Amino acid sequence: MSKLRKIILPESEIPRQWYNIQADMPTPLLPPLHPATKQPVGPADLAPLFPMDLIMQEVSKERWVDIPEEVLDIYKKWRPTPMFRAYDFEKMLDAPVKIYYKYEGTSPSGSHKPNTAVPQAYYNKKAGIKRLTTETGAGQWGSALSYACQHFGLELEVYMVKISYLQKPYRKIMMNTWGAEVIASPSDRTEAGRKILAADPNSNGSLGIAISEAVERAVMREDTNYSLGSVLNHVLMHQTIVGLEAVKQMEMAGDFPDVVIAPFGGGSNFAGLALPFLHQKLVNGKKVKLLASEPASCPKLTKGEFRYDFGDTVGMTPLMPMFTLGHNFMPPALHAGGLRYHGGSPIISQLMRDDLVHAEAIQQLECFKAGVMFAKAEAILPAPEATHAIASVIRQAEEAKQEGKERVILFNLCGHGHFDLQAYEDYFAGKLQDHYFTDEQLYANLKELEDIAIPA
Amino acid sequence: MSKLRKIILPESEIPRQWYNIQADMPTPLLPPLHPATKQPVGPADLAPLFPMDLIMQEVSKERWVDIPEEVLDIYKKWRPTPMFRAYDFEKMLDAPVKIYYKYEGTSPSGSHKPNTAVPQAYYNKKAGIKRLTTETGAGQWGSALSYACQHFGLELEVYMVKISYLQKPYRKIMMNTWGAEVIASPSDRTEAGRKILAADPNSNGSLGIAISEAVERAVMREDTNYSLGSVLNHVLMHQTIVGLEAVKQMEMAGDFPDVVIAPFGGGSNFAGLALPFLHQKLVNGKKVKLLASEPASCPKLTKGEFRYDFGDTVGMTPLMPMFTLGHNFMPPALHAGGLRYHGGSPIISQLMRDDLVHAEAIQQLECFKAGVMFAKAEAILPAPEATHAIASVIRQAEEAKQEGKERVILFNLCGHGHFDLQAYEDYFAGKLQDHYFTDEQLYANLKELEDIAIPA
Repeated sequence: MSKLRKIILPESEIPRQWYNIQADMPTPLLPPLHPATKQPVGPADLAPLFPMDLIMQEVSKERWVDIPEEVLDIYKKWRPTPMFRAYDFEKMLDAPVKIYYKYEGTSPSGSHKPNTAVPQAYYNKKAGIKRLTTETGAGQWGSALSYACQHFGLELEVYMVKISYLQKPYRKIMMNTWGAEVIASPSDRTEAGRKILAADPNSNGSLGIAISEAVERAVMREDTNYSLGSVLNHVLMHQTIVGLEAVKQMEMAGDFPDVVIAPFGGGSNFAGLALPFLHQKLVNGKKVKLLASEPASCPKLTKGEFRYDFGDTVGMTPLMPMFTLGHNFMPPALHAGGLRYHGGSPIISQLMRDDLVHAEAIQQLECFKAGVMFAKAEAILPAPEATHAIASVIRQAEEAKQEGKERVILFNLCGHGHFDLQAYEDYFAGKLQDHYFTDEQLYANLKELEDIAIPA
Repeated sequence: MSKLRKIILPESEIPRQWYNIQADMPTPLLPPLHPATKQPVGPADLAPLFPMDLIMQEVSKERWVDIPEEVLDIYKKWRPTPMFRAYDFEKMLDAPVKIYYKYEGTSPSGSHKPNTAVPQAYYNKKAGIKRLTTETGAGQWGSALSYACQHFGLELEVYMVKISYLQKPYRKIMMNTWGAEVIASPSDRTEAGRKILAADPNSNGSLGIAISEAVERAVMREDTNYSLGSVLNHVLMHQTIVGLEAVKQMEMAGDFPDVVIAPFGGGSNFAGLALPFLHQKLVNGKKVKLLASEPASCPKLTKGEFRYDFGDTVGMTPLMPMFTLGHNFMPPALHAGGLRYHGGSPIISQLMRDDLVHAEAIQQLECFKAGVMFAKAEAILPAPEATHAIASVIRQAEEAKQEGKERVILFNLCGHGHFDLQAYEDYFAGKLQDHYFTDEQLYANLKELEDIAIPA
């Protein structure tokens, strides 16, 4: 009898509620502050951007939140997603580890992003909204929201970071196929974009700038809302379906992870897999380490400062309490575009402070090397974002080998790399480099931030 | 209770034998003939190209052939593949149809091709072979074999049709990531390639030319074999795992298809899904129509002639009895690269003659229109090859509507279109055209063929 490679949760066993970590956080979240008054924002302040259902989820302290039937029905197009035991990768690493991975690449757009795109489109449609705006970096989020808007009959404007717009035409075509309009950012459609272009007509753009543009467009129009693919509390909550499935699947496998690893950009990828395991730790007393794997070229968790900062470059969003490199931080060009964000989500940032979450920063050459090893062993070509988690897995395996003790590892293979193969080609051709900051480079933007006190 | 979208066969229920239609064909296959002597070839004649295990499968009349444990173990990385009920597409078509599709896009290379790549690599490795050669058009087959060779530790040379090599760099990078060498064909590595280049230095290549090159390289070297991704009997047999799973899944769904549809290039895609249903018809008396959907720009089944012809352009392969447009037929540039082959597999050709298989030819604008509709409804972006089947499904739905009678349709969504998005962009931009042949264009190559009698 040969071994089973996949742990498959039946469609009938799909989780019917999201998990809200705010119910269980030892230290409650600090409130977001109004960008002008610096006073805590209330639900009404967010109403120009988000429908009330999502605003209520943002501040909810209910532990379990029902997933609407209409959302579940769409989830079932690809959920539950498979969990794999990485037998061949284990053999390649030759270490005393059992490696499991949750694979989110089977979704329509090829990553975990539709898990929140679908409910966000649904709640906006329900609120009578006609159009959404959003930003996208590598294109994962824009694609996911394009599909979700297509399904619910919403229009969508996607502001795509210009460097990605130029380097990833396929992602743009994918969004167009699902009916979205894609605009290279910075653009001349917005005040924010025009200001950036005036200062630097050749600007490659950044996630922060694209967010400013998308927010401005949503604020300008009555029937238009804005949608964000990570960072916010409700986004992280939607992603917990990944981890809730994984908890059940680990149970089916008769195992429990010593360490749970996921890539870290804004935080939703990591939170999606990790928070349901943190629930197991906080509520059920399980022992597990949660490890966020971030790029050394944008090291907000490991090198950033915990403080209030804006979510966007221009400063239109509320101020959020988070580990940040400063909202003007411009990461060096890097192919793991989805991780190029200056700050970490408030939830994960607070959990870091409380020592419930750990992080490490990894250089891209180590990541691509890990990605190619994984592709050769396990056959799936990982997205550059996902290679960060794989590199962390290899480090864990080496530790376990030195320790001589078995370690059970679970990681989030958050997406495939089908639209990122140019990055692999550049890696093979020796064109990619690691990136080392001087302290001055790293902290220049932080120094310019206005000081807003944080309770100790 | 909401409806189930997926019909999932547990990994433990994976079929453990392939189905060999040669056991049940009403008319036995005509033998392949030696290219020089025009006499039937025996196993020994094929030994310079293939390992004996595959040669024996090629001529076997056993109904069920065991799948080696080593192959099953790799299949389980993505098999059993899901079957979906296309609720949203049904709704869009507004016709009395139930539409099911088997989705092969979850494999490592994104199509059904690894189903035969893995056993072919396995049997060659077992025979002590060090290196394989092959051709690839759109890149689906080359990618699949690259992964399989990587797994079993074989080297691989892929001759990639030059136009695809230039238009699809991502496919090339994918093959490189799995360790294969990719050469644009025609190349100067072979006699065959040099001859073509001498006549036309700007040749875009074709599958037929690439096959000639790969075969020549394999014949030249002792430790090297050749591997073909379609057409041959053993290839079709390996693909029956698709249909064997589908038969079980239809049973799980409590349904049986009135019509089974798949795209047709060389025949393995179609055979994989259809032949196990033909088995249900021949052996169990079930009623089902099998419909091959081929491109109007390469219409061998609907417009070709049943006769002996070569599998390659130069005439190095055995002569095979098949529906063909002539081995020098050069299809117009078309994005569904995987279907650009001049002939149909001997098995499917013989079944066509015996009226057990039907075919229709579809123009590409109808196919892309169908593909975009499907993507909007079902979320999966289909490969251009797969859009042919989808177009046929829409035709079936229209027929059912006119007839006012329910029809159950099953089709093979043989792969995703992640590497084919340029074709969608060209379609949106109005750059694609339908193609109509004059009889002279269509039959010019057939007239030049040497006449070899076929028994009536």
